Amino acid sequence: MPRSFIFPHLAQFAAAMAGRRTAAVSVLVVALGLSGMIVLTVDPAYVTSHRWVEAGLWTCVAFFAVEWLARLVRAKRARHGLAYALSGHGLADAVAALAVPLAMAGGVDSRSAWLFGVVWLFKLVPEVSGLRRLRRVLVLESGPLLSVLVLFLMLLVFASVALYALERNVQPAVFGSLPSTLWWAVVTLTTVGYGDVVPVTPLGRLVAAMVMVCGLGVFGLWTGILATGFATETRRDNFLKTWNSVSKVPFFASLGPAAIADVTHVLRTMDLPAHTMIVRKGQPGDCMYFIAAGEVEVDLPGKKVRLREGGFFGEMALLGNRERSANITTTQLSRLLVLDLVDFHVLMSRHPDLAETIEGEAKRRTLENS
Amino acid sequence: MPRSFIFPHLAQFAAAMAGRRTAAVSVLVVALGLSGMIVLTVDPAYVTSHRWVEAGLWTCVAFFAVEWLARLVRAKRARHGLAYALSGHGLADAVAALAVPLAMAGGVDSRSAWLFGVVWLFKLVPEVSGLRRLRRVLVLESGPLLSVLVLFLMLLVFASVALYALERNVQPAVFGSLPSTLWWAVVTLTTVGYGDVVPVTPLGRLVAAMVMVCGLGVFGLWTGILATGFATETRRDNFLKTWNSVSKVPFFASLGPAAIADVTHVLRTMDLPAHTMIVRKGQPGDCMYFIAAGEVEVDLPGKKVRLREGGFFGEMALLGNRERSANITTTQLSRLLVLDLVDFHVLMSRHPDLAETIEGEAKRRTLENS
Amino acid sequence: MPRSFIFPHLAQFAAAMAGRRTAAVSVLVVALGLSGMIVLTVDPAYVTSHRWVEAGLWTCVAFFAVEWLARLVRAKRARHGLAYALSGHGLADAVAALAVPLAMAGGVDSRSAWLFGVVWLFKLVPEVSGLRRLRRVLVLESGPLLSVLVLFLMLLVFASVALYALERNVQPAVFGSLPSTLWWAVVTLTTVGYGDVVPVTPLGRLVAAMVMVCGLGVFGLWTGILATGFATETRRDNFLKTWNSVSKVPFFASLGPAAIADVTHVLRTMDLPAHTMIVRKGQPGDCMYFIAAGEVEVDLPGKKVRLREGGFFGEMALLGNRERSANITTTQLSRLLVLDLVDFHVLMSRHPDLAETIEGEAKRRTLENS
Amino acid sequence: MPRSFIFPHLAQFAAAMAGRRTAAVSVLVVALGLSGMIVLTVDPAYVTSHRWVEAGLWTCVAFFAVEWLARLVRAKRARHGLAYALSGHGLADAVAALAVPLAMAGGVDSRSAWLFGVVWLFKLVPEVSGLRRLRRVLVLESGPLLSVLVLFLMLLVFASVALYALERNVQPAVFGSLPSTLWWAVVTLTTVGYGDVVPVTPLGRLVAAMVMVCGLGVFGLWTGILATGFATETRRDNFLKTWNSVSKVPFFASLGPAAIADVTHVLRTMDLPAHTMIVRKGQPGDCMYFIAAGEVEVDLPGKKVRLREGGFFGEMALLGNRERSANITTTQLSRLLVLDLVDFHVLMSRHPDLAETIEGEAKRRTLENS
Repeated sequence: MPRSFIFPHLAQFAAAMAGRRTAAVSVLVVALGLSGMIVLTVDPAYVTSHRWVEAGLWTCVAFFAVEWLARLVRAKRARHGLAYALSGHGLADAVAALAVPLAMAGGVDSRSAWLFGVVWLFKLVPEVSGLRRLRRVLVLESGPLLSVLVLFLMLLVFASVALYALERNVQPAVFGSLPSTLWWAVVTLTTVGYGDVVPVTPLGRLVAAMVMVCGLGVFGLWTGILATGFATETRRDNFLKTWNSVSKVPFFASLGPAAIADVTHVLRTMDLPAHTMIVRKGQPGDCMYFIAAGEVEVDLPGKKVRLREGGFFGEMALLGNRERSANITTTQLSRLLVLDLVDFHVLMSRHPDLAETIEGEAKRRTLENS
Repeated sequence: MPRSFIFPHLAQFAAAMAGRRTAAVSVLVVALGLSGMIVLTVDPAYVTSHRWVEAGLWTCVAFFAVEWLARLVRAKRARHGLAYALSGHGLADAVAALAVPLAMAGGVDSRSAWLFGVVWLFKLVPEVSGLRRLRRVLVLESGPLLSVLVLFLMLLVFASVALYALERNVQPAVFGSLPSTLWWAVVTLTTVGYGDVVPVTPLGRLVAAMVMVCGLGVFGLWTGILATGFATETRRDNFLKTWNSVSKVPFFASLGPAAIADVTHVLRTMDLPAHTMIVRKGQPGDCMYFIAAGEVEVDLPGKKVRLREGGFFGEMALLGNRERSANITTTQLSRLLVLDLVDFHVLMSRHPDLAETIEGEAKRRTLENS
Repeated sequence: MPRSFIFPHLAQFAAAMAGRRTAAVSVLVVALGLSGMIVLTVDPAYVTSHRWVEAGLWTCVAFFAVEWLARLVRAKRARHGLAYALSGHGLADAVAALAVPLAMAGGVDSRSAWLFGVVWLFKLVPEVSGLRRLRRVLVLESGPLLSVLVLFLMLLVFASVALYALERNVQPAVFGSLPSTLWWAVVTLTTVGYGDVVPVTPLGRLVAAMVMVCGLGVFGLWTGILATGFATETRRDNFLKTWNSVSKVPFFASLGPAAIADVTHVLRTMDLPAHTMIVRKGQPGDCMYFIAAGEVEVDLPGKKVRLREGGFFGEMALLGNRERSANITTTQLSRLLVLDLVDFHVLMSRHPDLAETIEGEAKRRTLENS
Repeated sequence: MPRSFIFPHLAQFAAAMAGRRTAAVSVLVVALGLSGMIVLTVDPAYVTSHRWVEAGLWTCVAFFAVEWLARLVRAKRARHGLAYALSGHGLADAVAALAVPLAMAGGVDSRSAWLFGVVWLFKLVPEVSGLRRLRRVLVLESGPLLSVLVLFLMLLVFASVALYALERNVQPAVFGSLPSTLWWAVVTLTTVGYGDVVPVTPLGRLVAAMVMVCGLGVFGLWTGILATGFATETRRDNFLKTWNSVSKVPFFASLGPAAIADVTHVLRTMDLPAHTMIVRKGQPGDCMYFIAAGEVEVDLPGKKVRLREGGFFGEMALLGNRERSANITTTQLSRLLVLDLVDFHVLMSRHPDLAETIEGEAKRRTLENS
């Protein structure tokens, strides 16, 4: 078994999980800092307790500064100090550490200066795991999205000029200039509709009604584009994530590349911490699992069996017996590949040899445990 | 014919239908209870009739208590009493029975205590059949959905700080603290737009306009993710539901596994109560039916023919004659598999033997009836 | 050539087009009637001209009555009088003819009685061609849609009870009873947000903010379900519409059933009135056309060639020459099948014999015209 | 190598890029003109600086007039003067040049006449690249979209008549006539919800709540249709754009038509200006590139290698080595075809010969550079 191959993979995976703990601390400090910032703007809270809150905020700023410097030093040792300092990550760290002190040094009064703490939010950007996918969707679909935006802006200007012409004499206070009318148009086309500026003439209302219906259309196009782009990206992401794991499971490694691509299309990866129950005895089952990294323990009557990388379990559910026959728990941080009943049947019909292997193993296990 | 195989299946299916009647009573009692609760909060109604309403509400509570105890006893006899008591279902039953009495015992005044009746709604959760699918979508797409939520929260904080800085001097009453401004931001980004808090400075309005457009974007992403996830789940659910039935129709059982997977992909299951007309004579037809469980009666001129599990009908519609030639009605609770004209042609081109069987049977029937 | 086969098809198609003209008159009368009804509710207009308007409305009612009776008589002659009278179409006709007179006979004052004219809208239902598809989507996806609706109602009740408990003491006028609070919840969850009822306590606003975000989620699910269902239905409808036409084009009739299914999947039908220009000389072309019914005229230099049912044109665009080389116009009501460049290449790679036929014909034509 | 074939292609492509610069000037002038128009409607700005602004606006008008005349002359020389003058493009140019002067000549006062400058927006239509795709979606899905619109209008009329009947006696000022009530219905069904007209009777609110929920449904259908249509169009557009480029890469030209269609389905085109870095050393890579037009420079240690039309690079990323091994930059305006890791594996499993060529070339390069 390609152990030497899997260990670095697992190590890297464990490092990622450990990194999460550091990230959690960072997120917590940002959350505390922002809460403090919000409290400071509330008058009674400010009067009674601004000293304590400000002390807490200064602690947050100190934490950010120390974190930034530590990372700078570490990056310098690894000989990419400048690269880190100019990367998005490094700039976010720098801005988080410096924004408030610089604002105070620049003469902004203490209470307003804390508002610059909003830049701490940038530190969260790398923690949002799905953000990269969202960005890819926005980049790939930027053409149509920009078209819809331009369409929206054109509609905005047309609506404003029309309403300005129709309403300015009746309501000079709110429709008295194009900028005010543009405000009305934005509020209406985004379907926010505050109601602070409302047309009153019959013709103005007719035009406004048409503008609202067009607003729905723009909205629908916008959503349609994003939905289409998102569906494509999701498929792509799942494939990439699974591909790496599949090729490391010995069970699949014997298949040709065409079969591996087929398999990858239907598997789903799942990362589980240690001591998590994956399968509960007696529950209905509709999928089976392959172990890409880690280890699980099968709680059979009278004995406990451990399955390691490359093993699989839960195949009974796909072979007719829909009730799980044992509890199965992870013993360590594990990555599993999940195969749904649906995809199992499609897959098996195309790769009969795979089906035979799984059925053979299932029979062997049944005999052994009975 | 595998009769012995189909009977338990039908029995289980009939049990499910019978279970529905009990569920309907439960839903009715919950609806009555909630109506009573609503009536109690209306002042004139309370004064004139609170005795009668409260009597009704106590009846509902009694019903829930009895139901809970009965289920506890039944579960205990089947030796999984604790499992039921701690399951979501059991907890919902317990809370529904105990919430209001406990609140009253805890000293809450009678009129407020009835408000706790809102927990009765939890009893409806298992009755909502599609809820499991919705939950699966939310779980599987939780990554991107959380990303969008974080994006939304970040946008919220940025918008609030900007508007607070721009508007607090002009409208100290409504933009005077960050919590108030956050309220504005939520109301605006969700496009609710009450209009109770509205920016008035030109710069504030410009920023607000950009926030609204971003709000549309977040909304579109949200919808796109859910739409993508839902499409995937729907395909999966239909496949699972049909797979079980298909493999029980003798007609398909002779096919290989690849063909069965193909067939399953294009069939749709349909459960019909007894004495329902499926096909009306003279109407245009665009699908044929296979009987997975139950029985139907074909009303031919002069005689009535009964078709049982494994039979099929309506195939004329797919073989050129688009007008239905007889009324067909269920004689008992039946499960049918529907094959659309579209999919029929695709399927037939891939499995010519299936086509021959169907055409042969169709010819035989035409000869017999002419 | 199967001429005798195509003629009835064309006749039926022409009848459909003629039927449209009758429908247009019906739609026009309904539109006039509704306009009159609207005018009657405007006070100054009523005073000055209600006699003329009412005369017009009576004419509309008379038209509906005559139409209904004529259809009843015709249906009776064709021996399905009762079927028509009880069909949706027949009932809509009856209601349109009788609603206003019955209301007046029943003692409703004249001005209010005309409001019953709103039922005339039912006469439009059969004219909305896509309505059948929408209904199929709603029926097939009714399970998940109902689940979302129940989810929405549960959210509504929870939100109302929470806000009622939090706000009733501060704003007894608007949050003083559950029905009033339910009104707030509906207005908020649908993102309408009138602003007539707005929470003011900090806790109430916090709960309201969470309700709004949940509202977006419900909205997204709703849209996702409808989008998924609609995509499926659209594919199905196009297939059915094209299938009939494809099997009538001799060019395709020689193909086996598998190839016909393939072809049907990629063709699009298009109905054109007489004397419409289909292809303009010199314009870039990215599709070719097959004639399923009707006739076209190719305007070649020096001569005019006519192509009839079963012919095809525009194939040069798909064989490398992207610029159209002649004007092509319909000479009569025609149904064309459009083959896109995209699909052409996919199709040709699977059915090389089809490709050879088209290329051979294209070469023959090029030689002939050069 | 088919150089003579690629040069005209590249020339045409370069011309398109040059044309963009002219377009940018046009967009800038339109933006300036519209800004001036907006400034003129603001009272204090008008008083202090309307002379300067009007001077600027006249310059814009002069620019449009000159542009229009220049294009007319050029078109006349190319012998399609009338075609240009009557095309959408020509009419937009004409209207942009003439609207304001004609309005002034027609006696409109100067300040109002400038409002006609809104027609300048039409000049932007051809610049919005995605607009053609949006229009195709709207045309192809016009059937269902119209159905939903009719559904929306029917709902509008029903809701208005119901609310008019229920609220007119309580709120005669705002629900006193059907046109006013229609205004309420539009504002509510589009979820804008200004709050200027709000039902107050319990029954009116009940009906309004149902109308709002229906509004969500209409909205969902609308979005679903647009999303479906957009997904189809996007696939089609990408295919067409890529098809032309693929058939010009010698690497693919040796494949049969079936394989080319396969390849086209998975490639994405990308246009890059000169001196753009495509691949950065050390970054993770998940795609490879084919050069359809232009030239790139690979920055290997000690030497620089240039790759021209028909070449490919980045294949190491797909063959196991996920880190880019060199910087690669364009030397001139280039069009690249991008092959994702996902699609690479699928493609390779179907066309093993393609895989061998790429792997052979990759080995040769590795040997050469080591």
